[in-house]
Amino acid sequence: MEEEKTNTIKENPIELAQQAWTHLELVRKKSPLIQCITNFVSMDLMANTLLSAGASPAMIHSVDEIPEFTPKALGVCINAGTLTPDWLPGMKLAAQVANQSKKPWVLDPVAAGGSSFRLKACLELLALRPSVVRGNGSEILALFKGSVDSNSKGVDSVYGSSDAVEAAKSLAQQSGSIVAVSGAVDFITDGDKVVCVHNGVPMLQKITASGCSVTALISAFVAVDPSHPVEATASALAIFGVSSEIGMDMARGPASLRTHLIDSLYGLDEATALARVRISRF
Amino acid sequence: MEEEKTNTIKENPIELAQQAWTHLELVRKKSPLIQCITNFVSMDLMANTLLSAGASPAMIHSVDEIPEFTPKALGVCINAGTLTPDWLPGMKLAAQVANQSKKPWVLDPVAAGGSSFRLKACLELLALRPSVVRGNGSEILALFKGSVDSNSKGVDSVYGSSDAVEAAKSLAQQSGSIVAVSGAVDFITDGDKVVCVHNGVPMLQKITASGCSVTALISAFVAVDPSHPVEATASALAIFGVSSEIGMDMARGPASLRTHLIDSLYGLDEATALARVRISRF
Amino acid sequence: MEEEKTNTIKENPIELAQQAWTHLELVRKKSPLIQCITNFVSMDLMANTLLSAGASPAMIHSVDEIPEFTPKALGVCINAGTLTPDWLPGMKLAAQVANQSKKPWVLDPVAAGGSSFRLKACLELLALRPSVVRGNGSEILALFKGSVDSNSKGVDSVYGSSDAVEAAKSLAQQSGSIVAVSGAVDFITDGDKVVCVHNGVPMLQKITASGCSVTALISAFVAVDPSHPVEATASALAIFGVSSEIGMDMARGPASLRTHLIDSLYGLDEATALARVRISRF
Repeated sequence: MEEEKTNTIKENPIELAQQAWTHLELVRKKSPLIQCITNFVSMDLMANTLLSAGASPAMIHSVDEIPEFTPKALGVCINAGTLTPDWLPGMKLAAQVANQSKKPWVLDPVAAGGSSFRLKACLELLALRPSVVRGNGSEILALFKGSVDSNSKGVDSVYGSSDAVEAAKSLAQQSGSIVAVSGAVDFITDGDKVVCVHNGVPMLQKITASGCSVTALISAFVAVDPSHPVEATASALAIFGVSSEIGMDMARGPASLRTHLIDSLYGLDEATALARVRISRF
Repeated sequence: MEEEKTNTIKENPIELAQQAWTHLELVRKKSPLIQCITNFVSMDLMANTLLSAGASPAMIHSVDEIPEFTPKALGVCINAGTLTPDWLPGMKLAAQVANQSKKPWVLDPVAAGGSSFRLKACLELLALRPSVVRGNGSEILALFKGSVDSNSKGVDSVYGSSDAVEAAKSLAQQSGSIVAVSGAVDFITDGDKVVCVHNGVPMLQKITASGCSVTALISAFVAVDPSHPVEATASALAIFGVSSEIGMDMARGPASLRTHLIDSLYGLDEATALARVRISRF
Repeated sequence: MEEEKTNTIKENPIELAQQAWTHLELVRKKSPLIQCITNFVSMDLMANTLLSAGASPAMIHSVDEIPEFTPKALGVCINAGTLTPDWLPGMKLAAQVANQSKKPWVLDPVAAGGSSFRLKACLELLALRPSVVRGNGSEILALFKGSVDSNSKGVDSVYGSSDAVEAAKSLAQQSGSIVAVSGAVDFITDGDKVVCVHNGVPMLQKITASGCSVTALISAFVAVDPSHPVEATASALAIFGVSSEIGMDMARGPASLRTHLIDSLYGLDEATALARVRISRF
């Protein structure tokens, strides 16, 4: 499989599906150590998402051990969910150590437009140049505009992902980071090309921390293929989305979907991945 | 449905069941933003409970954003679970901002009688006059007596809910808050009238944070009908209890009950709600 | 049952299985209050594990209430998972109060070899002489060597449990604590005798906090039989392992295994326990 991996997003959807599978296989083989500095709500589901994909999560956030621990990680995930000022220094330090160690790190600017404090923190983290920023439409628009969202519903987006595509492109150009906007369709852009992922189910919005968890999965995928962050991000979003689709076939509601999603991610096989992954150019 | 909503607890159980369903419909329609300042154990289940009911949870606790964020919320839930002194200012500030914004807030005095520190904190929060206080028998008795419970088993009640009814009435009169005592039967009182909810299953006691989560659900129900906190509280307890009963039909133990409970809350339909809700006057 | 309980590990595997069942029955009867000071990732699963076994968990970590609360607990579980310096004083104080109150406490030195900060903290806690230390091979080796593990994968062990048996014996002799090493086979030693538990399934490694949760279960088992910490520890590991085996028969992946594990622990009956528990001498 690995030999077939390509350096750029292919035009051929079948090859894109193959690429997504190859990325998952790489995660399973390498079992990358992913350090997560994340909110209290998401820790459980995020760690289980990474484990079920084959990665090795470490929820470690103390400034006292980041200089020594972070260089051992293959990737870092930083999430602003239940932010307080005392967590910010650890987040920034981990970002800096990851940069120095040439390890990718991914930012999840949860509810970035929810308050001035939160927006400022997310913009400061963005200035440390994550490899990838993943948010919903509202979050990406807040980062782009640099202003608090008066319509904010907290962590739930009031904008669709397609509303935010142009903002995402501009934000990617300005920040130098890959920007991914999650929604009914996910858009991933480096400021120039835009890749779309059509996998996933609406009920994911009824599972807390499903967005946080897919950001962690992106961290693992980018960690095993740091030279191709757009492609690895698209692969992670597609694999997570496919797992939710398979899970949805068995689910009776959001809680059983969560269970089946994790089980499906763990058990996903090549034939199913190739048949279901839907990645395309914008 | 909404037109049939009434201003007071009806004598007719069928109308009370209708009222509970109407409250759930209102939550699903309005999707109220509910800010939760809660303990680390409960964050996941609480957020998922709110999402499955149709509300929009935001786990935000920093004093740095409460003045700006809390006014956007339609209701606030404050829970003393894993309390430390550094969390108290945020809890108090959120209560005050909610009061100023004329938004209801609900207090869950977890293990109030467990220690002097915890009791003092809960009494200080109670003095900020929540719309509703929801606890088990031991917690309500501790607040009423204002003394530490030497029999305390931490978060698990050693008193039944019926032992605490008179204490709940007095506490409601003194505090000006609605007081809800959870147990085999739930009692809700404004200090004068007492309403009973007969829904629920004993195995809920084997699911951590099920009590915390029903308090959050009360916050959402009261948020969409702030003029009738007794009725909205009874409706939330009944709807959560009905969901647990439906879940129990499929459960093999506490973990699958948790899954089925959330699924059932998400999928609850009018006919089932009307057939199962059991609310009555004391 | 209780009359048949023995003071030492029996040579006869059937009697050891009987002993494990007796320990579980004691937990169900006494419902011991177990105070847990643990990491953010594990709180939910740990509390649910204790509840499903019949114990009464209390996640309380503030120094402001430990002097008053900890003496009420029958056992204490201290876990270094998401450690920061501000949590250490509470952990140490709880250990000291438990010691003064003659209550057993159990240490889980999560990722002890992950950094100097973490190793130092774990060694300081170990110096307060827990009744039992439970870790994976890498963690026990790090404590024994007193050095940071350059191969560390965070919380996931790179050493098998059998690699660490001799280290565990030496560590037990030096520390005065019972040492338990989890793995494909679990080893429990007081520095002299070594007991093996052969229950469990490999997929437990794909469930975050399953190790933390079994440590909490050990706390509950030792709390109801503090005079026989080796035996109670082996019983807890076996009962948890058996529950995972039963769960595995129904599981489709790590998330459903987690659900079935908790359900199975809750519903475990004597015949199944006696048929499945596999404890032996080394």
